[in-house]
Parts: sequence; structure tokens; C-alpha cells
Amino acid sequence: MLKSGERIDQLYSQSVQIIQSPDVFSFSLDAVLLADFAKLPVRNRSLTVDLCAGNGAVGLFMSHKTHGKIVEVEIQPRLADMAKRSVELNQLSDQISVYPQDLATVFNHLKKDSADVVTCNPPYFENLPASKKNDNPYLTIARHEVKTTLKTVVDVTSQLLKMNGKAYFVHRPDRLLDLLALMQSHRLAPKRLRFVYPKANKEANMVLVEAIKDGQPDGLRVMPPMTVYDEQGEYLPEVGAILFGDKH
Amino acid sequence: MLKSGERIDQLYSQSVQIIQSPDVFSFSLDAVLLADFAKLPVRNRSLTVDLCAGNGAVGLFMSHKTHGKIVEVEIQPRLADMAKRSVELNQLSDQISVYPQDLATVFNHLKKDSADVVTCNPPYFENLPASKKNDNPYLTIARHEVKTTLKTVVDVTSQLLKMNGKAYFVHRPDRLLDLLALMQSHRLAPKRLRFVYPKANKEANMVLVEAIKDGQPDGLRVMPPMTVYDEQGEYLPEVGAILFGDKH
Repeated sequence: MLKSGERIDQLYSQSVQIIQSPDVFSFSLDAVLLADFAKLPVRNRSLTVDLCAGNGAVGLFMSHKTHGKIVEVEIQPRLADMAKRSVELNQLSDQISVYPQDLATVFNHLKKDSADVVTCNPPYFENLPASKKNDNPYLTIARHEVKTTLKTVVDVTSQLLKMNGKAYFVHRPDRLLDLLALMQSHRLAPKRLRFVYPKANKEANMVLVEAIKDGQPDGLRVMPPMTVYDEQGEYLPEVGAILFGDKH
Repeated sequence: MLKSGERIDQLYSQSVQIIQSPDVFSFSLDAVLLADFAKLPVRNRSLTVDLCAGNGAVGLFMSHKTHGKIVEVEIQPRLADMAKRSVELNQLSDQISVYPQDLATVFNHLKKDSADVVTCNPPYFENLPASKKNDNPYLTIARHEVKTTLKTVVDVTSQLLKMNGKAYFVHRPDRLLDLLALMQSHRLAPKRLRFVYPKANKEANMVLVEAIKDGQPDGLRVMPPMTVYDEQGEYLPEVGAILFGDKH
């Protein structure tokens, strides 16, 4: 089941196992927090789509929240293959499908206005000529807007969602203005923000955004701060519980 | 010096005294945190303008940060009069001027592109037909967009500022999308956000925004969370120091 350089890691709070490789892709806290932030309809006829799925972490970590189907879309065949094997490893093949393709072509397989929820942990960095990229092509594509752009991701998200369907994104605060503006110009009304601070006295390094397709433009809420570590570098209780369960 | 119903309150951290009246206007934590958040040029030829100045709290609380001039613009004569008397009470008449006028007419007195800093604690609530307003006309005008709108305030702010001048606003999170969009459409690039949470497990009820006129559109930072009270309802150290000084 494992290819060279791969290992199986576990999200202890959920007993989910996931195939990773430091040379190719490993999930980060961003994926865990996105999966925690997203609200999925429980019903078994619901559809949730995870774009820029990487090794499938977000879809796997959300699977306990719904009886519905989850589709993971990942452009890199090597990562999509890891995702597919993790789905099998967790015996979730009936629930989770992996589509190894560019998200811009996803309407070959999925109808427009069909998804209840779309989640996305997109590449964070613009593909600027001067931007320093990783020599590792897997990581470069996962982290930089080489194969897609935030505009395309938001556009596809909006087209996938039913009216009143919900989009959940995680991104860096320095792209928040772009993300909010793109959502608002693509029928997605931002409704909840949650900022993630590494420590209580540090600037936020992550923001979680919930938006509703064709939602009313008012009523934005900024949820309680999520602080990851205490002064000693230990996980604070909320994040610890998400990673390791309540009894860690 | 005091009129009926008025009293003198003090910001202990600065020994600033301020004339207030529960029937007319009293400054709130919002004003104190805005004054703390704003960065003013120290030099004595600088100009800082506070719009929607109320009883002048923001200007008074910022006065120790600069040797430059501060102008307070307040449309309600009764409030502007309180502000003027507070300026005299603190012997700051050489530094602070109070203009009792609609901010839309401020260019009668001030040149465009002349201010280094503009601060504003605007009315928070849209003037919707269904919105519940206070019976007290002073408070209604201070809290609801009866006499001005956020669009006008942002427009005047932008026109007042020099290139690279800085705007500082405090507002409610549920108007943040409006505020960010209006700033961006009026040459003001949001640069720093700071969210204020009443307690660590509560949603933000205030947001502080710094924007730079004609600034680059990228590089937004979200500053460390400001949490006001601990679980027992006591001020946490940062806010306590702003209100009462470091030794409270």
C-alpha cells in the first residue's frame, strides 16, 4: 500500500489514518482546522466537494460529519493517488471519491449547482515572477498558484454550490482582502471569519472563512479567536482536542 | 464650566479629564482603543483629524502622541461644545481645535491632501427604516447613520489625507465588509486589522482598521487578538494598562 518515502500518520482525535510523504505532501494544521470549521449536512444525499485536496486530509477529517458523499479534487496525480489509497485504508471508498484532475474541469463529472458544501485549502502564494518557490515540484504546485488561481478556485466553488450552499476556505490573512472581494463578486456572501493566532501575542497566520452562495450581504460574524500554542509552546485545549481528542 | 447633567471623568492612564453626560454623550472603550491603535507622527507640523469626534475623547486621548495639531470635527453643537470645554480643561487649546460642523463641509476649513492621519469612530448602525433607534436624539445621531454615512466618512477621510497618510477606524465586525470595500474604492489600502474580543471565548464586537492612502493593495496583517475581560469580568492586562496605566 505504501510507496517509497511514504508513511501512515494518524489524526488521533478521529482515528483517521492518512498516507503522507515528507518528499511529496503532508497535511498541515490548516487542513485540520478547515475540516473542523466546516459544517456539513448530515443527510446521506448531500454532496461535499473538497478542492485542492492534496493527499485528501480535509475530506478524510470531515467524513465523520456527514452520511453524504464527499468528492476530493486534486490536480497532481501523485497526491490524488495517495488520497485514494488513504480512502481505501480507512474503508471509506463508499463515501469518498477522488478525482485526479484540474478543478477547472470538474464539471465534466459534477453538475453545476449540485454541491451543499465546498471546502478548499488553496495554494497560498501568488505566482509572482519574483516569488521564491520550493525546488520540490509537488510542494511548489501545492503552495503556489502555478496550476490555478484564487479567482478560478472561487469561481468554480460558486458554480459548484447550490443556492444557499456553503463555502469554507482557509487562507493567509495577507490574502484575505482578495478572498473576500472575489467571494463577493462570485455570489458568495462571507458570513463567518475565524482568525487563528499561533500564540496569544502573535499576529494571525491563518483565517477561516464561511460564505453562503446568494446569501444576504450583511451580518458578518468574527468568531472567537483560535490560539494554537500557549507560552510554553504546548497546544492549547481547543486545538489539542481537535488534534488528539478531548482526553489528550 | 459644567452644564446641567455633566460630570468630569478621567482617563487615568493619561491623566486626561473629559466632560461627559449620560444624557448626551459619554465616550466608550471603542474611543480609547482607537486612540491607542492610531500611530501619529510626532513632529509638530503634522495634522491629525478626528471625524465624528463626539465629546472629543479620541483627540484628547491621542494628544500625548504628537506635537502636531489635532482637529476634532463634530456635527452636533452640544457635543462639540463639550469637546471644546474639555480641551480647555486639559489646557490643550494650542494643540486641539474643535470644528462644530458636518464633516462633509470640512473642506471649508481644511485643505484636501493635508492630513497625516485621520481617525474616526463613526456611527455604527445603518439608518434603515426598521432599525430601532434611541429616543435620545444625541445618542441617535452618534450611533446611527442619520446625519452621515460610512461612504461619506470614508470619502472625506480619503480626500483629507496626504498620499501615504493613514486612516484609523473602529467599527463593528458586521460592517467590516462594507468598510473594507469602501476603503479600497476610495484609495485607502487596508494594512492592519485588530479584532477586539470581549472575552476569549466570545465573538469579536469591535475591529480596528489601519489603511494607507494610495498604499500597495497587498500585505494585510491581522494583529494579535485584543481580549478585554477575563473569565471573572476583570480587565486583562493590556486593556487595563490602556485605561488605568501600567500600575493599575
